[in-house]
Amino acid sequence: MRMLDLIYKKRNGYELTKDEINFFVKGVTDDEFPDYQVSAFLMAVYFQKMNERETADLTEAMMHSGDIISLKNIDGIKVDKHSTGGVGDKTTIVLAPMVAACDVPVAKMSGRGLGHTGGTIDKLEAFKNLETEMSIEAFINRVNDIKLAVAGQTANLAPADKKLYALRDVTGTVDNISLIASSIMSKKLASGADAIVLDVKYGSGAFMKSLEEAKKLAESMVSIGKKLDRQVVALVTDMDQPLGCSVGNTLEVLEAIDVLKGNGPEDLKYLCIELGAQMLLLAEKTDSLASARELMQESISNGKALAKLKEFVQEQNGDTQIIDHPDAYDQAHFIREVTVDGEGYVVAINAENIGKAALVLGAGRTQKDSIIDLSVGVVLKKKRGDFVTRGETVAVIHANVEDAIPEAIDWIEKAYSLRENAPESIDMVQAVIK
Amino acid sequence: MRMLDLIYKKRNGYELTKDEINFFVKGVTDDEFPDYQVSAFLMAVYFQKMNERETADLTEAMMHSGDIISLKNIDGIKVDKHSTGGVGDKTTIVLAPMVAACDVPVAKMSGRGLGHTGGTIDKLEAFKNLETEMSIEAFINRVNDIKLAVAGQTANLAPADKKLYALRDVTGTVDNISLIASSIMSKKLASGADAIVLDVKYGSGAFMKSLEEAKKLAESMVSIGKKLDRQVVALVTDMDQPLGCSVGNTLEVLEAIDVLKGNGPEDLKYLCIELGAQMLLLAEKTDSLASARELMQESISNGKALAKLKEFVQEQNGDTQIIDHPDAYDQAHFIREVTVDGEGYVVAINAENIGKAALVLGAGRTQKDSIIDLSVGVVLKKKRGDFVTRGETVAVIHANVEDAIPEAIDWIEKAYSLRENAPESIDMVQAVIK
Repeated sequence: MRMLDLIYKKRNGYELTKDEINFFVKGVTDDEFPDYQVSAFLMAVYFQKMNERETADLTEAMMHSGDIISLKNIDGIKVDKHSTGGVGDKTTIVLAPMVAACDVPVAKMSGRGLGHTGGTIDKLEAFKNLETEMSIEAFINRVNDIKLAVAGQTANLAPADKKLYALRDVTGTVDNISLIASSIMSKKLASGADAIVLDVKYGSGAFMKSLEEAKKLAESMVSIGKKLDRQVVALVTDMDQPLGCSVGNTLEVLEAIDVLKGNGPEDLKYLCIELGAQMLLLAEKTDSLASARELMQESISNGKALAKLKEFVQEQNGDTQIIDHPDAYDQAHFIREVTVDGEGYVVAINAENIGKAALVLGAGRTQKDSIIDLSVGVVLKKKRGDFVTRGETVAVIHANVEDAIPEAIDWIEKAYSLRENAPESIDMVQAVIK
Repeated sequence: MRMLDLIYKKRNGYELTKDEINFFVKGVTDDEFPDYQVSAFLMAVYFQKMNERETADLTEAMMHSGDIISLKNIDGIKVDKHSTGGVGDKTTIVLAPMVAACDVPVAKMSGRGLGHTGGTIDKLEAFKNLETEMSIEAFINRVNDIKLAVAGQTANLAPADKKLYALRDVTGTVDNISLIASSIMSKKLASGADAIVLDVKYGSGAFMKSLEEAKKLAESMVSIGKKLDRQVVALVTDMDQPLGCSVGNTLEVLEAIDVLKGNGPEDLKYLCIELGAQMLLLAEKTDSLASARELMQESISNGKALAKLKEFVQEQNGDTQIIDHPDAYDQAHFIREVTVDGEGYVVAINAENIGKAALVLGAGRTQKDSIIDLSVGVVLKKKRGDFVTRGETVAVIHANVEDAIPEAIDWIEKAYSLRENAPESIDMVQAVIK
């Protein structure tokens, strides 16, 4: 078997066998093939696609290219959650304590972010001194003790995926459903969960711009799960405006805390209940979605989810002050209100542009080694469906570098679309695929 | 402008501008882009294709990536000929003296071969001591003196094409019409001819397996010529059986001499007259194809073409003995007759398989540094339409290594298809495109 033969076979539209896919992934893992052959192959896959069987085989091979984490020493059914990423997505920080408060174990491995804001691990730094580096044993013990732990990805998970992704990124071969689905699923499956709830986002702030594409990606990942004997449920959700109101690390954590206190934006709360309810179902905590939703709702109203967040932060040696005294946090130096021309109903808020505003303020990374400013970001005062009178504030900028403010204002102004008539409301969850 | 942007643009099906194509070719020439981006781009071109304008721009840019040879110091209209390559193709050695004998200058640059037999430069070594390395000045002087010179490609012609071809060869991106057409034409145009006659072959022994594909390639090359102001005529010709009867370097030269003496296989003679007549027309030697064909025919019957071959060999310091005494050449040690099972009409001779027989005998190169055995090869005794009685010899093997004979026999047996009924005859020239 030669790499060149696989290029021809895929280029000419044929299905690759499991052996051929294993040969490819092993060669990539061991750096046996020149990059120019791998990139030509990836471009051939982009055009000729992979079917469900090939995609599952690719996922399985990449999953086995590195460490496989075993969570068998954690009691109960372990359910993981993964989001394809969006602007203002702080669901993990809300959801994980809610689910853990219902006695379902949440063993969460997260990464740092590259883009408009940090990843979950970055955001958790809003709790001063919170530790996310720990051994697998400590991680498992914490979940057994308090049902919840969040750790950075330190293990060598799916190295074949890392290498392929780096090459895809510079050769125009990122946006193929099979390659995206196998990339996400190989890492998730290597992380050891028994079941996975996926939040597949579509819209201006998501990687998938259309509902159709997002559905296809969701279907592909659910199909991989079925072929590899893991239960997977995917929610396809709207990211055509930012989720919640805050975009920026500490600002998002404050909003998450607010939701756990029974306040906060409705869309964020709704999504967390929907995702959490699916997790409870997969964990066999209850047998109907209606009762699962009730349990989620109760975890907020009875204060148990908030208490669980506090317990988790303490367990990982973090400072809980921001939970008890949210007003006392280190606010950014410059707070600027942003207005837009004219008046009318907000019909759209381009989430990507809001993300760019946060990025120029310093909330995210443009390069792997960029330093994140935790306190900066954007807080939206008006969301889709709200009416804006002339001169009314639509958003507030939190900045530490004054020079960055004009560009951030520019992005925010561009993001808002006002119209005379109110827009139709959109259900946040557009499809549930399982 | 970034290489990655060009990958995306072509991948998504858009037309590249002249500036973008120049940027690409310059970057390739100067080794500015990583191979993995170039190969991903080539695979995108394979799927999305290039239109006529893009193909012409690519050709022009590659042509200008190295030296441009000027033939302006040669009197008259310089017409070049190029064949896409086939099994038993010795047309240059027949044709060049025929055209030069009609007082039309033939300034031919040729290469060495990689495959079943050598290229023209290799074959000319059958004339002992013949020199093909010479300065451009000597080359031009020779054409002015005797109307004919053949030189090896020593100049730095179209280096961008060389680099791209090397990468295409190992990334499954060779067989795309635009890439093939621009590769051939960039080198031909850099060689300085005013007009070009192309022999585009199709069939089992050719790169293009179908007539349709060969026509498309011919049309693409003629279109490039039009866009770059050079007259180009393409003949699309049958290579579904070897051309003539001999395959192997010295054996082919002997056959070429035989044609110039008024004998030799009809198909070879016919093709040389057709190609040569087109060259005379482009050189404005005559104004009708009929009279051009007559001139070609006469160059053989009046002995002038044979005399021109002899003059050319002497001029380039080669030994002419093989012309006067063809029986005295260094014959291979082993001569073996080959028979096939059964009897019937020959309906097909797979040319690629005959080529492989010649290759295993040592007539060609499997690697760039392989040493060619000039005297070995295969001589066909039966061609398409001939009747073979049981046990009758269909071909003769000329070998120097006895161990190679069984495999050669095997390839020859596989090549012949016999049937009860005679096949319909096929016109060698299937289309003339200009």
